[in-house]
Amino acid sequence: MTAPQPYRTRHRALRALEVAYDRIAAAGRDEVFISLSDRQEARDAVEDAFSRPVGPLTGMIIAVKDNIDVLGFDTTAACPGYRYTPDRDSAVAGALRAAGATVIGKTNLDQFATGLVGTRSPYGAVRDSRVPARISGGSSSGSAVAVALGFVDAALGTDTAGSGRIPAGLQGIVGVKPTPGVVSTRGVVPACASYDCVSVFARTTVAAEAVTACISATGTRTWPTETRFSAPAEPVVGIPRELPELSDGWREAFAGAVERLRATGCRIRTVDLAPALEAARMLYGSPLVAERAEAVGEFVTAAVDSKDPATGLDPTVTAIVTAAGGYTGPQVLAAQRQLGRRRRAVTNSWDGLDGLLIPTAPFHPTIAEVRADPVGVNTRLGTYTNFCNLFDMCATAVPWTTVDDGGHGDGIPAQFGVTVLAPAFGDAVAAGIAARLGTAGDEGDEGEPRTTGDASSAGSWVRSAGAETVSLVVVGAHLRGQPLNHQLTDHGAYFVGEVRTSPRYRLYALDTVPPKPGLSGPVDNGGASVAGEEWRMSPAELARFLDALPAPMALGEVLLDDGRRLTGFTCQPCAVDGAAEITSSGGWRPYLDGQ
Amino acid sequence: MTAPQPYRTRHRALRALEVAYDRIAAAGRDEVFISLSDRQEARDAVEDAFSRPVGPLTGMIIAVKDNIDVLGFDTTAACPGYRYTPDRDSAVAGALRAAGATVIGKTNLDQFATGLVGTRSPYGAVRDSRVPARISGGSSSGSAVAVALGFVDAALGTDTAGSGRIPAGLQGIVGVKPTPGVVSTRGVVPACASYDCVSVFARTTVAAEAVTACISATGTRTWPTETRFSAPAEPVVGIPRELPELSDGWREAFAGAVERLRATGCRIRTVDLAPALEAARMLYGSPLVAERAEAVGEFVTAAVDSKDPATGLDPTVTAIVTAAGGYTGPQVLAAQRQLGRRRRAVTNSWDGLDGLLIPTAPFHPTIAEVRADPVGVNTRLGTYTNFCNLFDMCATAVPWTTVDDGGHGDGIPAQFGVTVLAPAFGDAVAAGIAARLGTAGDEGDEGEPRTTGDASSAGSWVRSAGAETVSLVVVGAHLRGQPLNHQLTDHGAYFVGEVRTSPRYRLYALDTVPPKPGLSGPVDNGGASVAGEEWRMSPAELARFLDALPAPMALGEVLLDDGRRLTGFTCQPCAVDGAAEITSSGGWRPYLDGQ
Repeated sequence: MTAPQPYRTRHRALRALEVAYDRIAAAGRDEVFISLSDRQEARDAVEDAFSRPVGPLTGMIIAVKDNIDVLGFDTTAACPGYRYTPDRDSAVAGALRAAGATVIGKTNLDQFATGLVGTRSPYGAVRDSRVPARISGGSSSGSAVAVALGFVDAALGTDTAGSGRIPAGLQGIVGVKPTPGVVSTRGVVPACASYDCVSVFARTTVAAEAVTACISATGTRTWPTETRFSAPAEPVVGIPRELPELSDGWREAFAGAVERLRATGCRIRTVDLAPALEAARMLYGSPLVAERAEAVGEFVTAAVDSKDPATGLDPTVTAIVTAAGGYTGPQVLAAQRQLGRRRRAVTNSWDGLDGLLIPTAPFHPTIAEVRADPVGVNTRLGTYTNFCNLFDMCATAVPWTTVDDGGHGDGIPAQFGVTVLAPAFGDAVAAGIAARLGTAGDEGDEGEPRTTGDASSAGSWVRSAGAETVSLVVVGAHLRGQPLNHQLTDHGAYFVGEVRTSPRYRLYALDTVPPKPGLSGPVDNGGASVAGEEWRMSPAELARFLDALPAPMALGEVLLDDGRRLTGFTCQPCAVDGAAEITSSGGWRPYLDGQ
Repeated sequence: MTAPQPYRTRHRALRALEVAYDRIAAAGRDEVFISLSDRQEARDAVEDAFSRPVGPLTGMIIAVKDNIDVLGFDTTAACPGYRYTPDRDSAVAGALRAAGATVIGKTNLDQFATGLVGTRSPYGAVRDSRVPARISGGSSSGSAVAVALGFVDAALGTDTAGSGRIPAGLQGIVGVKPTPGVVSTRGVVPACASYDCVSVFARTTVAAEAVTACISATGTRTWPTETRFSAPAEPVVGIPRELPELSDGWREAFAGAVERLRATGCRIRTVDLAPALEAARMLYGSPLVAERAEAVGEFVTAAVDSKDPATGLDPTVTAIVTAAGGYTGPQVLAAQRQLGRRRRAVTNSWDGLDGLLIPTAPFHPTIAEVRADPVGVNTRLGTYTNFCNLFDMCATAVPWTTVDDGGHGDGIPAQFGVTVLAPAFGDAVAAGIAARLGTAGDEGDEGEPRTTGDASSAGSWVRSAGAETVSLVVVGAHLRGQPLNHQLTDHGAYFVGEVRTSPRYRLYALDTVPPKPGLSGPVDNGGASVAGEEWRMSPAELARFLDALPAPMALGEVLLDDGRRLTGFTCQPCAVDGAAEITSSGGWRPYLDGQ
């Protein structure tokens, strides 16, 4: 194991902090933070982080949505009357702290995370990072804008109906919304507790995944023994047959993303999204909305009764929560049952898809438009996001391009983002497909697809999440760059590193198509150390790989020069009869190079 | 594939039917069936079954609880006013029909499956099969007594809080309660739809499993890729530290079952059952009971309002369902959340257990005792059954012995049954542990442990349920009776059959401890057909097996003489250097025999 590396050195972190606070001071965006450490407090917090054992986020500067408890900050959920001082970190804040991150502030949100607009807050409507007359998107409004304006490296949000994706799409940043239940919501103010997720925003996929990795093992849900850690070489990607709510310019932009995926080898399938969108209406338009009354109904009712304006209730949120309390127990149970039936019908119809590409937000409204029709605009904004958690799916939202118009004829360029969805536990597959768009790598110029990170690391946070894996040592045609390497990623495997066998192995050039080597050992005489690669995958995928492996290849224990005994490639005894021994080459690649 | 065999020949089936109808006529137990085919209708139905393609249940005579739709019979759920004529089979009845079974009648139950006593029915309190003053247990009362009295070979019940186990325990028969969701409840009158399961009764495990196999693939839930198809050689079995509600004689009987398990190699661990029993009270004593109002609340309310005695409402059931409708949506959601937390806490505390052995029913009350305290006796009767479905567990209830007293000082011998529980999808493990008790094999004398079926087939129904499997061909130390065979069942594998390789294989006696053969092929010259066995297991378990396999053994493709290519044992090339070739022996067993 290599020693943990900080996200940044102490010196760079302190410099980054000064830049961040200069930006915050210059931006005039007081609505972004509900509470913010002052500059000296933040400096002290960074110094404190470097005084503790180094973690992967040491030196990273983070903001947290103000419905997530962070020790040292009050929690308000954007409702002044709801304010409390938590006596411990939420599970995710604790994980960030343990990883070394520095939280500098708590961000504004649609009150009680109820909304997708970012305007439903007595702390101010959060304005778009580029065009202040427009909304930020919500409910994780402040977190997304803090990231987009470079106030922080990354931020936590929450996502029930799209709150971790809509603002990512509108602000042109990355939003990772993990599979429901794998990241803990302990210490998070519930919105709809059955469907709430913690989400992560960053300007780059690499930063978003670094944060997600650190919170990925906090939840209660067990990853299955067939978890995939990478996308297949030619993923099957569903796209909607119809694109409701999108204007022409936004449709063209979406078509461009589809073409990009196709160009990278994705197989595109058209699907009917209508039953999913219909089911999604249940979140607000059925007794399922009683979740919101379960979450904060008692508080809201008491606050309404108090008639005290200082409670700061948002009228739209209050109306939703109050109405939500009127459903009976049997009505809620029947709605849960109906949702289950719809989920099964829809997800069965999507069988065989590795992922689903959809627009993140269908348009970018102004604050005035939202004020004129607070519920209607919000509903239409969630067209493509509402069903995700109801259907137990994971999502990666990435920027794609800019369009000439917000979608409502205002003629001002807007960010256009897309989301890749996958079924539960397909997080690495969704991330891998999204990475092919090549648009979430760094802070490139606006209006241009941005350069990508390393697509092979997309979804790497899933490796930290606690799913069971087994190693496979490959020494021949499955090495990176060799003809059968794609079989490994087709089985969801990921590359761990280069390895060498103990010096007691022999290698043979077998008579197979394509040519493969046969590894055998440990032997007492005449062996050498042979070069290979360690990959890891889920146990079920390893068995499927083995079950498809043709003779004379075989899998068995391989002893490495570091003393580990891992499962790796060998072959049947009959395969080496008459085969040339190539042990002295030291490995298959040097052997091929010498041919 | 062998041709399907009927459960009985036509001749034997018709004779069995006459015996059954003679018993029904002689028994004077009119309360058992709510509807019953007359003798000639039943004869015609058996003839009809034999006129169709033979299935595994062709010739089997079955009764179905009257809350499960069967075409040709009305459904009442033991409420005359609720009666309707279904226009199609329930999913399970359709599966029985497809498998060739003949349903002769619909059985009495606690109304709307609400109760564990069997007395809550306007069609009459169902009396114990041996001591008519006692209750049958319920709610699947008629089904259990029909099986116990030999009216039918097997019967379907349903089980929410124990309705498929309590009457099995009290009637001294087998009750299989599969993992929630794996057997369909389509066409079943709901009791608590979130927790309802279809269950199976029979006098023998073999018959119960034959029926369960035929309905096992009807549900919506996907079996995991780590499903186990057999119990390990030395299962870890939890037993309760305390035994509330059991009188002394019943405690002794339970201790006997524990000792039997210990004697068969089980490792016994004491667990604290109290948190589970506490959580179980939520089924009736929390807003979760709103499930019952969701199920039949509208009907019951209208029937009460009608004041028409012909609706036949049971007063106890009516009181429960009516009260259940008073909970609000947020209350139900909060209760679901609380149950989830308790389930996680309790099941985490049971980590490492393969199963849990508990008494099925804690005592055997009389009908008079139930009449005197209908709710109190019912509640205490469900002490050990209520938490199972709430905790997403599966169960096998088997007879164990008789005791001198019903548990309430009446001095009349009573059946004492035990149940093995396992976490979701551990059905075959639970069945395998229960089979070690050796008490559910045939209709042996009462009061004596009965002879067992073949323990290696326990839980065999899971093989039909649709879980993914991969084959493993073993040729040496893992063959049945050989020293490493237990590793296969420790990984949940099951024996499929004896196989032979194609005639192009060579076998070597390797220098390993214990001695193992090395198989290699296909070869062009000097090969022979080698004897082996095909086993099947889940992919994740095969990978775990491979990951623990020491050099020089390996797994790869083996070509069989029937043309199939399966994963099987081979070895690394270096292992055969200097090893004796034993191909001419034709297999490891003949080679060992010749040593």
